[in-house]
Amino acid sequence: LHTLWPDKQELRLVRYVSKAAAKTQLEFEYNGPSMKTEVPGPRSKELTKQLGEMQNVGAINFFCNYEESRGNYLVDVDGNRMLDYTDPLYSYWLVHRSPLFLLSAFVNRPALGIMPPENFPEKLAESLLSVAPSGMSRVQTMACGSCSNENAYKAMFIWYRNKERGHNIPSDEDMSSCMINQSPGCPDLSILSFMGGFHGRTMGCLATTHSKAIHKLDVPSFDWPIAPFPKLKYPLEEFTRENAQEEARCLEEVEDLIVQWRQKGRPVAGIVIEPIQAEGGDNHATPDFFKKLRNIARKHGSAFHVDEVQTGGGTTGKFWAHEHWGMDDPADIVSFSKKMLTGGFYHKDEPTSLWLCVSSFPGLPHCGCVCLLSQAYRIFNTWMGDPSKNLFLAEVLNVIRRENLLEEVTRSGKTLLQGLYQLQDQYPNLLSSARGQGTFCAIDIRDDATRNSIILKARDKGVLLGGCGDRSIRFRPALVFKEHHVHMFLNVFSDVLAEHN
Amino acid sequence: LHTLWPDKQELRLVRYVSKAAAKTQLEFEYNGPSMKTEVPGPRSKELTKQLGEMQNVGAINFFCNYEESRGNYLVDVDGNRMLDYTDPLYSYWLVHRSPLFLLSAFVNRPALGIMPPENFPEKLAESLLSVAPSGMSRVQTMACGSCSNENAYKAMFIWYRNKERGHNIPSDEDMSSCMINQSPGCPDLSILSFMGGFHGRTMGCLATTHSKAIHKLDVPSFDWPIAPFPKLKYPLEEFTRENAQEEARCLEEVEDLIVQWRQKGRPVAGIVIEPIQAEGGDNHATPDFFKKLRNIARKHGSAFHVDEVQTGGGTTGKFWAHEHWGMDDPADIVSFSKKMLTGGFYHKDEPTSLWLCVSSFPGLPHCGCVCLLSQAYRIFNTWMGDPSKNLFLAEVLNVIRRENLLEEVTRSGKTLLQGLYQLQDQYPNLLSSARGQGTFCAIDIRDDATRNSIILKARDKGVLLGGCGDRSIRFRPALVFKEHHVHMFLNVFSDVLAEHN
Repeated sequence: LHTLWPDKQELRLVRYVSKAAAKTQLEFEYNGPSMKTEVPGPRSKELTKQLGEMQNVGAINFFCNYEESRGNYLVDVDGNRMLDYTDPLYSYWLVHRSPLFLLSAFVNRPALGIMPPENFPEKLAESLLSVAPSGMSRVQTMACGSCSNENAYKAMFIWYRNKERGHNIPSDEDMSSCMINQSPGCPDLSILSFMGGFHGRTMGCLATTHSKAIHKLDVPSFDWPIAPFPKLKYPLEEFTRENAQEEARCLEEVEDLIVQWRQKGRPVAGIVIEPIQAEGGDNHATPDFFKKLRNIARKHGSAFHVDEVQTGGGTTGKFWAHEHWGMDDPADIVSFSKKMLTGGFYHKDEPTSLWLCVSSFPGLPHCGCVCLLSQAYRIFNTWMGDPSKNLFLAEVLNVIRRENLLEEVTRSGKTLLQGLYQLQDQYPNLLSSARGQGTFCAIDIRDDATRNSIILKARDKGVLLGGCGDRSIRFRPALVFKEHHVHMFLNVFSDVLAEHN
Repeated sequence: LHTLWPDKQELRLVRYVSKAAAKTQLEFEYNGPSMKTEVPGPRSKELTKQLGEMQNVGAINFFCNYEESRGNYLVDVDGNRMLDYTDPLYSYWLVHRSPLFLLSAFVNRPALGIMPPENFPEKLAESLLSVAPSGMSRVQTMACGSCSNENAYKAMFIWYRNKERGHNIPSDEDMSSCMINQSPGCPDLSILSFMGGFHGRTMGCLATTHSKAIHKLDVPSFDWPIAPFPKLKYPLEEFTRENAQEEARCLEEVEDLIVQWRQKGRPVAGIVIEPIQAEGGDNHATPDFFKKLRNIARKHGSAFHVDEVQTGGGTTGKFWAHEHWGMDDPADIVSFSKKMLTGGFYHKDEPTSLWLCVSSFPGLPHCGCVCLLSQAYRIFNTWMGDPSKNLFLAEVLNVIRRENLLEEVTRSGKTLLQGLYQLQDQYPNLLSSARGQGTFCAIDIRDDATRNSIILKARDKGVLLGGCGDRSIRFRPALVFKEHHVHMFLNVFSDVLAEHN
C-alpha cells in the first residue's frame, strides 16, 4: 500500500490489472465510501441557509469539498465520502492525472445549482452581492448574457402567471397543456421591448432585440409589442423641452401597446430596457423617462427589467448605469454579464415580490432528477455560471475599490466628452451628437462610409475603436483609462478627422 | 524609468498623480501605440485561414497576444500594439494588479468570435476537432448546452430559408419585417421534437423539451410538432418484433407531422433528437430507427440535429452515442456540452451543406459593430465559449486515450448491466427494464416513492445515484469507473433493494 498524501490515510494507490489495456494500472483513490453524518450534514445545512439568503437553494443537495474528492469519490463538506454515479461533469476524477488539473478551482466546474463548492456563498457575497443594485439582495448566476436575460424573462412569466392565479399552484390543465407547448400551461404572454434595443441572440432574447436585421433574419419569433425609444438631441441639457416632448410621446406609446396587447390576449408580463441602448447606437434617455417608465410598469402590473449587460461594471462612472436615475427602487430585475465576467441577474427579495416566482412550490411533483429534496429547477441549468469567474470578479472589485477607478472613470470621461465637444465644434460637417456617461461615450459621424474609414485609419495609428448604430463610433476603454490616455487618443483622433474633413 | 520586465524595453512604469485618489499611482504600461504591420497582419491572416477550416471566421478582426497585452494596450499576434477602446471585457488590464491574474489563460476571457488568442486554432484542433463526429470537420463553440442548441436551431432556420430562396440574399421585405418580429423576415418555421426529449431551458430549446412540466410551465412557446418517441421493451434484443412495430408507428407519425405542419404554413426546418432520451427516462431506440429517421429528414428537406449534450464524451463506450448506429453520415448537426467542458455544435463542411448558412453573405449591410471586415454575426455571441475549457478538454482527451478509458467503460458497463439483469431476476416486483450502453445505464423501479427511497438509502450508504423519467434510476459514473467499482456498487445496491423488497 503506497500513499501519496501521507496525511490522508484512506487515500491509497489502487493497483489493478486492466483487462482492456492488458497491463497494470495505478489509480489514486479512496478505498471505499465513508459516511460521517446524515446527508446533508450540519455544515451543508448551514451553507444552504447562508446561500438561501442570496438565491434559490431548492435544488441543492449538499455542498462539496472538491479539493478532497478523488476518482469515483465525491467528498462533501461534512466529510462524507460517496461513490458518485450522478454524472460528474466536473472533473475531479482527473485530478491526479495531469499537472493542469492541480488548478482545482478551475478544473472542477461544478453543477452549481445542485452541488456547489464550500466557498460559493462566501465568494458570491464578496463578488456579486457586494455590488448589488439598490433594493436587491438576491442574485442568480448564469453562464452568459443571453442566458441571463432568457432566465430573467422566464422569471417574469412565472411571476405574472402566479399573480394571475392568485397562488403558485398550477392546475392539472396547466401541467398537461405545457407539455405540448399549448396554453394555458404555455401562456400567451409577452415582453415589451424597444426599437433599437439589444438583449441577446437566443430565441426569447432575440424576440426583444431590434438593433440590426442581421441578428434576427430567418429566425422565427414572437408577436410581442415593440415601443419607440426616445430619439433625443444632444447635449441633453441644451434640448430639455424637445427631449421631454419626445420622451412623453414614447411613454404614451408604451401605455397604448400594453393596453393593445392585453386586449389581444397576450398581456405584457414584463418590460425590458437598457439604461443606454448600446448596440443600437448609444441612445440615451433622461432619468425622468426611466422613472416614468418604471411607474407605468407598476401601474399595469408588468415587471420591470433593466438590462445592464453592456452598461454594468463601472464604465458609466457608477457601478450600474441605472444609479444615474437616483431611484431607491429602480427595477424588479437587473441582468448583467460581460465585464462582470459571469452572467446572471439580481432580483428583489421581498416575499411578495418577484423572487417567489423562482422558488419551489408544494403543488408540483418533484422533478425526478438528482435532487429528491426540492421542487425547484424552474430557473435552472447544469452549470448556472462558473465559480472561477466569481473568484476573478472579487479581485476585479478589489482593484476597482483600491484604485478608486469609478472616480477615475468619471474624471477621464468628462475630459473625453469635453474633447469630443471641441472636435465637434471644429468639424461640424463631420461630427455631431457627442454624448456619454463616464467613459461610455459615442459620437455620430457624417455617414456610415466615413465612420468606417475613420475607424480603420485610427486602427492604422494604433487606436482600436468600435462602431454602433447606423453611423456612430463608440468609446469603450477599460476602467484604467486615465486622463493621459484621453489626450493620447484625442491627438490621434484629431489627426484622423483632419484627413476626412 | 523602472522596468519590471527588462526584456520588454517599451513596457514602463508610468508614474502619475491621480487627482481622484490625490496620491501618486503606479501603472505598468507601454508608452504608446506601436504599429509593425497592417492589421490584420500576416500572422493574423494565417491563423484566420487555419481557423477558417474549422469554423466561420467572418467576424474575426485579428488574433491577439493576450500575454503581451497590458493596461490600455492590446497587442496582436503580429506585434502591433494598440490603445483598445473596443470594450475590453477580457481583463488583461488587470494583469499586474493581482497575483491571481497571472493565470493569464484563465483571466483573459476573450471575445472569441472577434479577437481570439493565438493558440485558439491549435487548441481547437487538439481538443474538439480531434473527436469530431463522422463527416464533420467544423465546430462552433458556445458557453452552455442551451446556447449550443439555440444556435444550432438558428443555423437550421437560416439554412432552410436560404434553401427556400435558392440563394442567400434576403429581400428588403425580409430585412424590414424581421426587425419587428414579423414574417417573412422572421419566418413561420418549426423544429420537430419528441415527447420525453430534453434539449435545454432557453425559450427556443424549451419549445422542443417535453420531459417534465416543471421545465415548461408558464413560459410562452411555439406551435411546433411533437412526435412520439418509441416506447420499447428491454432487453431490446429479446423483443425485436414488438420494438420494430413500435418504431415504425413513431416514424409514420413523424412523416404525418412533417406533412401537417407544411400544410399549416409552418414547415419543419429541422428534426432534433437525443440518441438516448436521458432526462426523459433513459429511453433507447434501435440504430434502425435512427437510420430511418435520418432518411425521413433527408426526404422532406429538413436538417437532422443529434443532441449529444448528455450522451457525448464517452460514457456509452463510444465517444459519441450516435456511433453505435454505424452510419457514415449520421447527422447535419451534433451539439454537445457538459462532459465536453464547453458547449457548441459540430456541423458538416460540404459547401452545399449546412455550413453555408452560418457564413457571411454579400447582400447584407455590415453589422456596424466592432468588425468592419465581415458580415458575419449571425451565429454569434460575445464569448462564444471559453478557451480555458478547450485547454482542459485537450487534457481530458489525452487521459481518455492514454488510459483506454472507452474500452474500460465498455467493459465496466457490461459488468454493470449483467449485475442489473441479475438483480432484476432476483427482485421482479421491484425492478424492471434494465438497459444501457457502456456505463450509461438505467433501471425502472416499482414506483416513484420506492425509487426515491432507494436513492436516499443508497446515499446513506455512500453511493450517490440520480433519477430520471417517472420512476427510473440512472447510473452516470465517471469515465474511471472500473469493474471493482461495479462490484462495490452492486453490493450496496443489493443491500438497499433487500430493504425494499
